[in-house]
Amino acid sequence: MQTYAAAGVDIDASDRAKKLISRHIRSTRRPEVLSDIGFFGGSFEFKGYREPVLVSSADGVGTKLKIARVLGRHDTVGVDLVNHCVNDILTCGAEPLFFLDYIALGRMVPQTVEAIVRGLARACRAVNCALIGGETAEMPGMYAPEDYDLAGFIVGVVEKSRRLGRRQIRPGDAILALPSSGLHTNGYSLARKVLGETPAALNRRHAELGRTLGEALLEPHRCYFNQVHPVLPRVKALAHITGGGFEGNVPRVLPKGLGARFRKGAWDVPPVFSLIQRRGRIDDAEMYRVFNMGVGMALVCAPEEVSRLRKSMPEARLVGEVLRQRGPTRVLID
Amino acid sequence: MQTYAAAGVDIDASDRAKKLISRHIRSTRRPEVLSDIGFFGGSFEFKGYREPVLVSSADGVGTKLKIARVLGRHDTVGVDLVNHCVNDILTCGAEPLFFLDYIALGRMVPQTVEAIVRGLARACRAVNCALIGGETAEMPGMYAPEDYDLAGFIVGVVEKSRRLGRRQIRPGDAILALPSSGLHTNGYSLARKVLGETPAALNRRHAELGRTLGEALLEPHRCYFNQVHPVLPRVKALAHITGGGFEGNVPRVLPKGLGARFRKGAWDVPPVFSLIQRRGRIDDAEMYRVFNMGVGMALVCAPEEVSRLRKSMPEARLVGEVLRQRGPTRVLID
Repeated sequence: MQTYAAAGVDIDASDRAKKLISRHIRSTRRPEVLSDIGFFGGSFEFKGYREPVLVSSADGVGTKLKIARVLGRHDTVGVDLVNHCVNDILTCGAEPLFFLDYIALGRMVPQTVEAIVRGLARACRAVNCALIGGETAEMPGMYAPEDYDLAGFIVGVVEKSRRLGRRQIRPGDAILALPSSGLHTNGYSLARKVLGETPAALNRRHAELGRTLGEALLEPHRCYFNQVHPVLPRVKALAHITGGGFEGNVPRVLPKGLGARFRKGAWDVPPVFSLIQRRGRIDDAEMYRVFNMGVGMALVCAPEEVSRLRKSMPEARLVGEVLRQRGPTRVLID
Repeated sequence: MQTYAAAGVDIDASDRAKKLISRHIRSTRRPEVLSDIGFFGGSFEFKGYREPVLVSSADGVGTKLKIARVLGRHDTVGVDLVNHCVNDILTCGAEPLFFLDYIALGRMVPQTVEAIVRGLARACRAVNCALIGGETAEMPGMYAPEDYDLAGFIVGVVEKSRRLGRRQIRPGDAILALPSSGLHTNGYSLARKVLGETPAALNRRHAELGRTLGEALLEPHRCYFNQVHPVLPRVKALAHITGGGFEGNVPRVLPKGLGARFRKGAWDVPPVFSLIQRRGRIDDAEMYRVFNMGVGMALVCAPEEVSRLRKSMPEARLVGEVLRQRGPTRVLID
């Protein structure tokens, strides 16, 4: 006689996971949330805006999850995911409203799900975002028993008149950089290949990193919302440097006929990138195409805003400028 | 010298996939969509509501994806995903606004991504939902080269005064059922274990199914929006019968002190369920705990609404009623 449990799907474990995560979910509640945990849809009362634009984004954590799995540390990948999404909608000028997650596992381990959701909830609380729903699916045969994937989805809002990308970008505009905390959530397939991902490799302390490799690689994706949102009126555009590196992200915010130049040495490249580059003998172009190289968020602003922006964001570095350019938008790094 | 491509991440294939999917995404455009494809966030202008409540849901397709992979047919799983999400928010009375997807693959195959997105777009168009964003991630080492996972997120809206679940459910209320088209997106781990998932097993024609097993198992999750949304004023509650079957879903819409009774024989159980039950020698309780058993959506209404609802939805069957009950909410099927 067959049962769902014998086929690898444990409804009871799933129920235990639901119980464990409920207090984390509740900790993110905002007054607008009308639904209780566990209904088919999450309901969010939407009021107080004049000409609202809803801004949404979907993301994953990539193979950074593999590092988390080897280290058995599952409470930071949720932070990565939320922060990635928050930064993405921040580039449109939006503030977060609510978040939903998707967790797919080879085997339902309630403690793992709890750790993931604890991370999600912590990052949500930091930006007043309600964790309003999600799906946790046990998929035996699709994922190895200890593997899981994690995806997330955010909805935020911005008043139409305050959307970013409406102020005209001109040649000579400045590019400021806010430092990343490490790889954030991109380039892990290359980093893993170059540096290895055995417990021995990850637990080894590196003097140049000042910590173990695993700690450096698991460092959560930084959230720029609380720092950048207050200064948005002085900013023309934001590029979140994620998958595709500089080339893949900076051109997304530049109008045709303009390009960008970054000056190497104008910001600090964190040691984890030098380590990867050296060990993998990777050329510079590939490094900047794959990794954020220490620039987590690039801000475009008028030159006269630079000093005031740097005053309110002391970490910001002036790293380049906007150029007139023919042909497809390019990013020069020299 | 290492490169991202050698580490299994092909940025060029990813760019080709983006080109292939763009016309499908554009086909779902609504006038409210302000963003173009490929920005960090999707922007949706939100207007014309008085007291809007945003309703969102996240879902996956489960191991139905395994069947799609074996059959090499990738243009229906997107339909499954969208319809699952649309039905979920319909239970709150909401109509769809926009959708985002997450596709994670072991290897980036642009044609596979295109087929998936074609399905997503087709189902979105059917309910006037904009496919506004998504993430496609190549994750070598996490998924087998031919494997992928697929998750989706929907946002819809309902006027606060029209939210479902506000009309009081009473003992004696009727339960109507709308037929499912098959397993929808639940119970595939058990079905695969019982029926097998080799190409030979899936391509075999079964007289009782009137088609091959693979065709029956891949049949898309039905969407109930266009049929049910117009009659919502006559409905007290909707339960979408998904993971957890009758027990896992019907109690979600019933207040404490009430339970539900379904009368076997009052609706047709599609032959695919009988086949699974017979082959797996699965007992009745387990079948109703795992599968929808032919009931895709259960509607609760006052008894005096039954005949009018059945007139506008000729497929609807009167299958049970709401009962007074002590203790935790139970579902009787007898």
